[in-house]
Amino acid sequence: MSDELFAAVVAHTAVRGQTDDAAVVAAILRVESALADAQGQVGDLDDAAVAAVREACEAADVDLDELARGTALGGNPVIPLVNELKSLAGSHAGAVHRGATSQDVLDTALMLMSRDSIGTITADVGRAVTSVGDLATDDHTVMGRTLMQSALPLPLATKVDGWRRGLADVSSRLSDVAVGLPVQLGGPVGDGSTLGERYEDVRARFADALGLADAPSWHTMRLPVADLAAGLATASGVIGKIALDVVLLAQAEVAEVREVSSDRGGSSSMPHKSNPIAAISARASARRAPHLAAHLFAQMEQEHERAAGAWHAEWSVLVDLLRATGSAAWWLAESLTSLEIDPEALERHQ
Amino acid sequence: MSDELFAAVVAHTAVRGQTDDAAVVAAILRVESALADAQGQVGDLDDAAVAAVREACEAADVDLDELARGTALGGNPVIPLVNELKSLAGSHAGAVHRGATSQDVLDTALMLMSRDSIGTITADVGRAVTSVGDLATDDHTVMGRTLMQSALPLPLATKVDGWRRGLADVSSRLSDVAVGLPVQLGGPVGDGSTLGERYEDVRARFADALGLADAPSWHTMRLPVADLAAGLATASGVIGKIALDVVLLAQAEVAEVREVSSDRGGSSSMPHKSNPIAAISARASARRAPHLAAHLFAQMEQEHERAAGAWHAEWSVLVDLLRATGSAAWWLAESLTSLEIDPEALERHQ
Amino acid sequence: MSDELFAAVVAHTAVRGQTDDAAVVAAILRVESALADAQGQVGDLDDAAVAAVREACEAADVDLDELARGTALGGNPVIPLVNELKSLAGSHAGAVHRGATSQDVLDTALMLMSRDSIGTITADVGRAVTSVGDLATDDHTVMGRTLMQSALPLPLATKVDGWRRGLADVSSRLSDVAVGLPVQLGGPVGDGSTLGERYEDVRARFADALGLADAPSWHTMRLPVADLAAGLATASGVIGKIALDVVLLAQAEVAEVREVSSDRGGSSSMPHKSNPIAAISARASARRAPHLAAHLFAQMEQEHERAAGAWHAEWSVLVDLLRATGSAAWWLAESLTSLEIDPEALERHQ
Amino acid sequence: MSDELFAAVVAHTAVRGQTDDAAVVAAILRVESALADAQGQVGDLDDAAVAAVREACEAADVDLDELARGTALGGNPVIPLVNELKSLAGSHAGAVHRGATSQDVLDTALMLMSRDSIGTITADVGRAVTSVGDLATDDHTVMGRTLMQSALPLPLATKVDGWRRGLADVSSRLSDVAVGLPVQLGGPVGDGSTLGERYEDVRARFADALGLADAPSWHTMRLPVADLAAGLATASGVIGKIALDVVLLAQAEVAEVREVSSDRGGSSSMPHKSNPIAAISARASARRAPHLAAHLFAQMEQEHERAAGAWHAEWSVLVDLLRATGSAAWWLAESLTSLEIDPEALERHQ
Repeated sequence: MSDELFAAVVAHTAVRGQTDDAAVVAAILRVESALADAQGQVGDLDDAAVAAVREACEAADVDLDELARGTALGGNPVIPLVNELKSLAGSHAGAVHRGATSQDVLDTALMLMSRDSIGTITADVGRAVTSVGDLATDDHTVMGRTLMQSALPLPLATKVDGWRRGLADVSSRLSDVAVGLPVQLGGPVGDGSTLGERYEDVRARFADALGLADAPSWHTMRLPVADLAAGLATASGVIGKIALDVVLLAQAEVAEVREVSSDRGGSSSMPHKSNPIAAISARASARRAPHLAAHLFAQMEQEHERAAGAWHAEWSVLVDLLRATGSAAWWLAESLTSLEIDPEALERHQ
Repeated sequence: MSDELFAAVVAHTAVRGQTDDAAVVAAILRVESALADAQGQVGDLDDAAVAAVREACEAADVDLDELARGTALGGNPVIPLVNELKSLAGSHAGAVHRGATSQDVLDTALMLMSRDSIGTITADVGRAVTSVGDLATDDHTVMGRTLMQSALPLPLATKVDGWRRGLADVSSRLSDVAVGLPVQLGGPVGDGSTLGERYEDVRARFADALGLADAPSWHTMRLPVADLAAGLATASGVIGKIALDVVLLAQAEVAEVREVSSDRGGSSSMPHKSNPIAAISARASARRAPHLAAHLFAQMEQEHERAAGAWHAEWSVLVDLLRATGSAAWWLAESLTSLEIDPEALERHQ
Repeated sequence: MSDELFAAVVAHTAVRGQTDDAAVVAAILRVESALADAQGQVGDLDDAAVAAVREACEAADVDLDELARGTALGGNPVIPLVNELKSLAGSHAGAVHRGATSQDVLDTALMLMSRDSIGTITADVGRAVTSVGDLATDDHTVMGRTLMQSALPLPLATKVDGWRRGLADVSSRLSDVAVGLPVQLGGPVGDGSTLGERYEDVRARFADALGLADAPSWHTMRLPVADLAAGLATASGVIGKIALDVVLLAQAEVAEVREVSSDRGGSSSMPHKSNPIAAISARASARRAPHLAAHLFAQMEQEHERAAGAWHAEWSVLVDLLRATGSAAWWLAESLTSLEIDPEALERHQ
Repeated sequence: MSDELFAAVVAHTAVRGQTDDAAVVAAILRVESALADAQGQVGDLDDAAVAAVREACEAADVDLDELARGTALGGNPVIPLVNELKSLAGSHAGAVHRGATSQDVLDTALMLMSRDSIGTITADVGRAVTSVGDLATDDHTVMGRTLMQSALPLPLATKVDGWRRGLADVSSRLSDVAVGLPVQLGGPVGDGSTLGERYEDVRARFADALGLADAPSWHTMRLPVADLAAGLATASGVIGKIALDVVLLAQAEVAEVREVSSDRGGSSSMPHKSNPIAAISARASARRAPHLAAHLFAQMEQEHERAAGAWHAEWSVLVDLLRATGSAAWWLAESLTSLEIDPEALERHQ
């Protein structure tokens, strides 16, 4: 079952490959392995046990259809995957997932996937920043427009510098969010009691191994998810603003910019048209963000030690939000890179 | 690239198969074929041309990866697919997609997919209604609870009859929405001018062939999408309310109901637990709806004759909303079918 | 404490006066009086008791500040208001609010306020429809624009007829919603048991007296609120689309229409500007709707017989949604009434 | 026209007085005065002119009804207010609002109001933190609950320490947001050209006088509004989680805590009930936040130098979000302060 067609427009980003089923499985396996490693480092597991877990994680040959069936029955993908790891670990089964709860593993896996996705997004935002820099070099003047009416002219470099500042801010915010993303490790009720006396030490080493921040359990105190929601919705908002400006400047009656591309934006029925498809796709992608973020904020109301539904309702929406923002960034970079300015049109409107 | 794992919880429904890439392609081909048929009926195309289009639609052997690439370049999947049909139709290429615009075809295809998906959803809602009926047969009394405090007892049959009425209303609303879903046919600027003098006759026959309602072009007046958003969000709201009641009644300290299932809801780390996984998954699925619906309402602000982004931003969200509601309905039916009542617990709380 | 300034732009409608504190109190008093009347008609109250309740409702001289304090303490405004009515009714205190619960009264009051507000909204939509009709009389042609690029010309009458159809649909939908709005009457746990043997008869007469539909209790099955959310968000969506078209047509570089008003839209710093303030305000008002509707859909997940928070979270958002939609309708009517077309500009862009 | 009744539940906070009409007018006057001061400091205005502006701001005797009418005609409240100031300033009229645009003034005023409101919110969050500390002192154990089923016991101090950490994080985030809130000053098209050669110096002094951050114009790059949306929605999410826990612990069948208050939470029809009204009101208030935040994120897509609707659509929603979060914080502090623990109930459920 595939969803490539609509994704080609509103999820057009390498983030897809960083958040699909294969990425989920890989992240879960990486987390289980890192947990055993950390427990080995503090002496909670002996070397043979750690090696057995690591090998099980490497050997796991996951049948995605079967894993999906197990996910539906158990309520999350970690439960069936741990069962498989235990059977692979043989006599060391008890060392697999030791003291942890499935939410520990899935939350940590989602943080890894989010961090990697943000890397992709900020790289595309960086491409966009570079392209804006190129637009700012010439000495053009553009009509300033307020409430869609002509106001006063301003330097084009000043206008696009506003775009650049917005993108740079977004980049720095997203990087801050990525750096703060924590591991999740607390056991069934989040207090670490099943993880033994060396719980905090294990957690610190686990975080260190994965390159995530160390933090007490946040099973139902979803600040890291809120930070992702906020950072990604903000990024999409900035991208959407710039994409809208490009679409408006490219309007037939304004025509101060156009996207120049040998292969994009044709209309089969109307060959005279040239649609700024990249800016339009950036805008369409960015528009998904506010509602996905609202969903994540609304899921913060989680019951007691682990939620009865609100946690499950986060997963695919977080993934969609990473993809939507990634797609917006990718398309905006494409648009700005291909943008051609018409100095005569700029002149005519002053 | 697959997204089966998280879908196993929050998109657990046959609607997925009715809305994936293969379903999109099949619906587009059906629409193109029906258009040529309708144009043949009124004499705009001769029999050979109609046959050529029909055969091209049947013969089309779509490479989804390539189609996805073409979608990204053109801005929607119809443009590359029409190109393929034209090349298959050979000398009758001009009969393919005659007078239509790509939004005509994709909107109509989405209406077909929505109608079929609603059929699945109402069938699962019907299963839930039947199960509620079974719960209402015995002569139990349940404590009525307001603001989560004990209020006054009421017949359990009265309580669950409120669930049944809600589900029945939802079913009838969704059926009304499905019946009203219209074809889209208007040509590039929606006025039908490229579809010739017999435009309205063609449109009526096109609608008739597809079993959709006939209506003037709604390229940027998105009432059918708003109707879907409203009907599906309402349905999810009702389902979420019932699922919440089940989760609350199944709480450890209440324990008046439990989901009895041989294979669902176990906890690997805590064998004494029995989680009402179906109700929890129904709730998680239903919670996606309000925000997806808000997104669709927010996209109603579309420019002139066709929108620069807001239309593109609808597609996958409409699909997600159909799937989320379908998943909520499926899980609720599972939950209610497996529900076992504990008469002693009911008694104890009065 | 007043909020008139921002309301002057995004809540500019007579709906405000139909939904403010005075309107809430008046509606509650009307509901309490109608309930006693209905109970008198079936013989549950004698004439003296009915008269005493009616007189208490007429005599009630509510101090809003004190009522607000009582509302905060009790959790809703009905509790303190009923206390005052009971003290006014003296020996007939027992006849006040007999068998009812505070949610019965507040829900019914909100349905009355919603119905009246929809009357205002559809009247303003009607004004807009009339103005669109005036725009359609001349024989102009306008450039059709897709993805903000020039596509093909079409008759201006056809373009604006799309607006008219959207507005007419909205009007008919809102009227349908208004007609279906039901009373709420069920007593503490919604089963009518505290309302006696003639409960259903009382409910029918209560509904009849208030001109609302009769329906079983919907304390936690919020379909009427969902219908309002859907109808109002759809209406705002249609209005927002038309307002956007006006704003785009009024752009400096297009200038095919402008709002002509002796007093609106000036800019103190830039006297050469003429902003289409009415269309802009319509758009700003309409944009509030999707998110307010999402909130109401999200509150449908209500616990057992009465919700612990989700019901309280509905009230002011429903009011805001009525006002936002009312404001959008009012401003759109203003805009369309003042719209002047520039035939030369229409010509120039073809 | 007043809206006190529903506000008594979901906007129960001193933030109301910091964001009503009087507060808007006061903030606008403060901003105009600070601007003249800053221009005086750099020598753009002479002392007499600065004094005249300051006196006009002090003397302004605003008729709110008339100002609301002017707001509707001009599109924002600054335009009519500046007209009044100019007439009060007599021969120094030219010194009023010199080089500024109305959005400069209203945005800066909203940042002042937001900063002051955050002060109120964090104070109430601080009260809640203190109360949580009191709950954590005894040596109780509580059943840990996952998916609403009993899991394993944990120390109550550990459970409530999770609440405390969440609140402390929220407090620090909100303070960071407040510190970063910038002035807005850029003139009609945001480039500062109308503010003269000493524009950046004026802006820095203007920021300094108001205690806001200095930043280039962000008329259509709405990062400060996004930061407020993110911070406030996150705060409401944390508060809502804790309020939900309280409501669940206070359930009749759990009864491990209850709100003890001499005057709150009674039920006129059911004297045996004791509703945790403060926690319920906190939850109802907090639930408004995600959708208000989504609205603000969605308005980031603003046109060119100043938006045609999206800016206007921000004002009252930002105010509502400040109030909703303030109300959630106030009620949570009330709830936690009044919370009584039942050690026997805690014991019984293990």
